[in-house]
Amino acid sequence: MPLVRISLMQGKPASYRAAIGAAVHKAMVETINVPPLDHFQVITEHPRSDIIYDPAYLDIKRTDDVVFIQITLNGGRTTEMKRALYKRLVELLVAEPGIRPEDVLINLVEVGKENWSFGNGIASYAQ
Amino acid sequence: MPLVRISLMQGKPASYRAAIGAAVHKAMVETINVPPLDHFQVITEHPRSDIIYDPAYLDIKRTDDVVFIQITLNGGRTTEMKRALYKRLVELLVAEPGIRPEDVLINLVEVGKENWSFGNGIASYAQ
Amino acid sequence: MPLVRISLMQGKPASYRAAIGAAVHKAMVETINVPPLDHFQVITEHPRSDIIYDPAYLDIKRTDDVVFIQITLNGGRTTEMKRALYKRLVELLVAEPGIRPEDVLINLVEVGKENWSFGNGIASYAQ
Repeated sequence: MPLVRISLMQGKPASYRAAIGAAVHKAMVETINVPPLDHFQVITEHPRSDIIYDPAYLDIKRTDDVVFIQITLNGGRTTEMKRALYKRLVELLVAEPGIRPEDVLINLVEVGKENWSFGNGIASYAQ
Repeated sequence: MPLVRISLMQGKPASYRAAIGAAVHKAMVETINVPPLDHFQVITEHPRSDIIYDPAYLDIKRTDDVVFIQITLNGGRTTEMKRALYKRLVELLVAEPGIRPEDVLINLVEVGKENWSFGNGIASYAQ
Repeated sequence: MPLVRISLMQGKPASYRAAIGAAVHKAMVETINVPPLDHFQVITEHPRSDIIYDPAYLDIKRTDDVVFIQITLNGGRTTEMKRALYKRLVELLVAEPGIRPEDVLINLVEVGKENWSFGNGIASYAQ
């Protein structure tokens, strides 16, 4: 059910981008009860000019390796679950493909269960 | 008022992408009271490596022709209206450009009426 | 905290795109209390075929210079603040890079404070 958009600067190999996608998915499965097969993502590369970030907001030092991860998912996770997600996702990205913790920006957009169709024109999660 | 993002793998002709956009719009007009002229969409093509989907989540068999359709719209539609949208949208996509029902993923993101400006710096729908 | 997605047709120079990004940020700082360093945006260019807009919806005459600005931000701004944002953003875009007021589409997506991590795997705004 999450639909994930991952945005980063162009120039990394496909394996690097794939590792980001895998980390996002693994962190969601481990921390916020996302089903293991529920894996849907769009990764986009952008020119240097077209990803704009502040290099020091909240006293966090960012570089051009910044990654924006925007996750649309069902509402209802607690703040503690979200905290666990952020922490685990950064741990995994540090390990592989090797991203600085400071360079990971995460945003969640919550929607209702009836707001998804995963194929066949059915409201997959509606009661 | 809907702002639609359509993501698919690269390699299809522009006419194929246009048919997807037209189907999404027609389905919304028919099922959830979207005005016929209220037509705003961004379609993006992506390399094979950068659209990630599970080929069998919820026992639905997906292929590389998978299309992700994310619609930001005003809240307030009933679940029945959303069901009708999903069903009609898939019917239309099967007819033209010819997409398998299993390959259509739809997600709705709902916002408030005051969250739109359609030009001239005016809150188009706010009271 | 806003994460901004700006979509326009391809063919404008990078300086034009940068001016749009700067205007969006300045308008948010001036009207809705966004911190000056809180600046995170993704700008994307698209072929003519892949940005779809109605040229007359709500009797507003749009051209191929249309720009879609989608802002994900914390909920809680009043409608008056949103009105001020739309108005100021259009004023700034008219001045630089020189966009017609009719060509500016703005959409806000509101989320909870706990839905952000700006680095280090921390929920930056959660209590």
